[in-house]
Amino acid sequence: MYAIAVHGGAGKWLSDSESSVLDGVRHATEIGQLILLQGGTALDAVVSVVVELENNPIFNAGTGSAFNVDGEAEMDAGVMMGQGLQTGNVACIRRVKNPILVARKVMEETDHVLLAGEGVLRFARDMGFEDYDPVTPFRVDDYLKKRQKMLDDAGSMAYLRNILRSQAEEHAKGTVGCVVLDVHGGLAAATSTGGVTMKLAGRIGDSPIPGAGNYATSSAAASATGQGEMMMRILTTKSVCDLVRGGWTAEKAVKEVLARMATEVGTGAGIIAVDANGVIGIAHLTQDMPHAYVSNGQKDIVAAMHV
Amino acid sequence: MYAIAVHGGAGKWLSDSESSVLDGVRHATEIGQLILLQGGTALDAVVSVVVELENNPIFNAGTGSAFNVDGEAEMDAGVMMGQGLQTGNVACIRRVKNPILVARKVMEETDHVLLAGEGVLRFARDMGFEDYDPVTPFRVDDYLKKRQKMLDDAGSMAYLRNILRSQAEEHAKGTVGCVVLDVHGGLAAATSTGGVTMKLAGRIGDSPIPGAGNYATSSAAASATGQGEMMMRILTTKSVCDLVRGGWTAEKAVKEVLARMATEVGTGAGIIAVDANGVIGIAHLTQDMPHAYVSNGQKDIVAAMHV
Repeated sequence: MYAIAVHGGAGKWLSDSESSVLDGVRHATEIGQLILLQGGTALDAVVSVVVELENNPIFNAGTGSAFNVDGEAEMDAGVMMGQGLQTGNVACIRRVKNPILVARKVMEETDHVLLAGEGVLRFARDMGFEDYDPVTPFRVDDYLKKRQKMLDDAGSMAYLRNILRSQAEEHAKGTVGCVVLDVHGGLAAATSTGGVTMKLAGRIGDSPIPGAGNYATSSAAASATGQGEMMMRILTTKSVCDLVRGGWTAEKAVKEVLARMATEVGTGAGIIAVDANGVIGIAHLTQDMPHAYVSNGQKDIVAAMHV
Repeated sequence: MYAIAVHGGAGKWLSDSESSVLDGVRHATEIGQLILLQGGTALDAVVSVVVELENNPIFNAGTGSAFNVDGEAEMDAGVMMGQGLQTGNVACIRRVKNPILVARKVMEETDHVLLAGEGVLRFARDMGFEDYDPVTPFRVDDYLKKRQKMLDDAGSMAYLRNILRSQAEEHAKGTVGCVVLDVHGGLAAATSTGGVTMKLAGRIGDSPIPGAGNYATSSAAASATGQGEMMMRILTTKSVCDLVRGGWTAEKAVKEVLARMATEVGTGAGIIAVDANGVIGIAHLTQDMPHAYVSNGQKDIVAAMHV
């Protein structure tokens, strides 16, 4: 028995990007499925899937990450295994190709759970990760337009204030995540993002925070996407895994947690999860959340822009 | 009705520091009590208490923070209100006097929940926080001794490896935290730390992670201390608040969560909590956890090195 689900970020996608986005999540799911069919681990599957999505410039993770207010991509990523609650996470990491691979190194090579900023960049270089600029032409244009709009709208202090308050308008569209149950019964989750456009330098979102944007236990694995600050206040993925531990399926748990979030903090989120019985849960309260999934009981990979 | 509890960090304290440590937590609790008796908010109380403890060089927060492997103090702090689940947090912040005040500014002036590293330092300066070196002679000596021991024990790559693996020996003794129920029924928690000695640069612990080292809901407020990586994998303070929401008292909830942690991740932790009924919970599985508490049903502040 195996099951894998992938998302490409909750939000509102432009209709002309639909086929590329669906191809992206479908192809990444195929890569994970192949690993699982060959007896590979959940950890290897989620990391390989997220590497594929980080390398695809259409998603907001790795190459193609959104810029912060300084015009820099500061990326967040996290990986977690249900077994032993092992987890590694990186935050505000600049100039590496695959943040998820650095997160895995944090888990495997240190006793820390989360490294950030200049410190994690030096760690990455020590571990052999080379300098890489994740910039894409789309992100440069997007940044310059938004920056100009802010400058047009306001003066200097108001400009800063505008930035501090601007985030609510912007969903973290394009965050990527993957959850897996492998044939050995192992569960894992991985999530990676460039975060929200025009965020303050040093802002950390939910993706590298165990229990917020990414979590796995012996019961379930979950990855969330959307307005990260909501996930950090509610502990979205921890809540999903707790419900599954209490007897819920992943399918019901993701819906219930989104309903609770809608009452307490807002609707701008989506979640994917898989439980130890191989049940997949996919739900979102945003217009879109491109996703794909497959399990051993299923002939073909299913891919769709929304549920 | 009001209740306030304060801790000065789980771990093993030297017996000759006992009276200074107890004076520190008792005096901080007095400051918080006075604010509450005058009708002040839980937020004002927890922040004022933590500022007092950050300014006391005997604790590992603000002035007197532990050094990382580079010989620098990188500090973490978080504050959270039960009302609206509002929270602000700073991680790896250098050269400010009171990290908890910067965390409060993140909550009040931005739409972000967590800022780290160079970004949060610039934010702090923009908000008027002046340059301040939190160094103390004790921390310089402590760092130089530990660094020499590592250099004696190992060569260059092994030296790095030694650092990466050294953290398990070291508890985050001296982390400070405060939880409050105010006379208006408001709940809040605040936690601040220099983290573990010889941590890698960029390491973020549990204190600035909502649900890990610090959390508040409309049911309870909780602050944890000890090996931060355990709290980040289990979501210690979120678990306490969930139990209280399910009908437990804060007193029973902190014991139950420590018992679960002992099974799943280890024993090097302590927790303080207060619930909406004014019940205080204090428990630890370390040798010491200096703490103090008082509530309206109590004549004098109680202060002790361990439960």
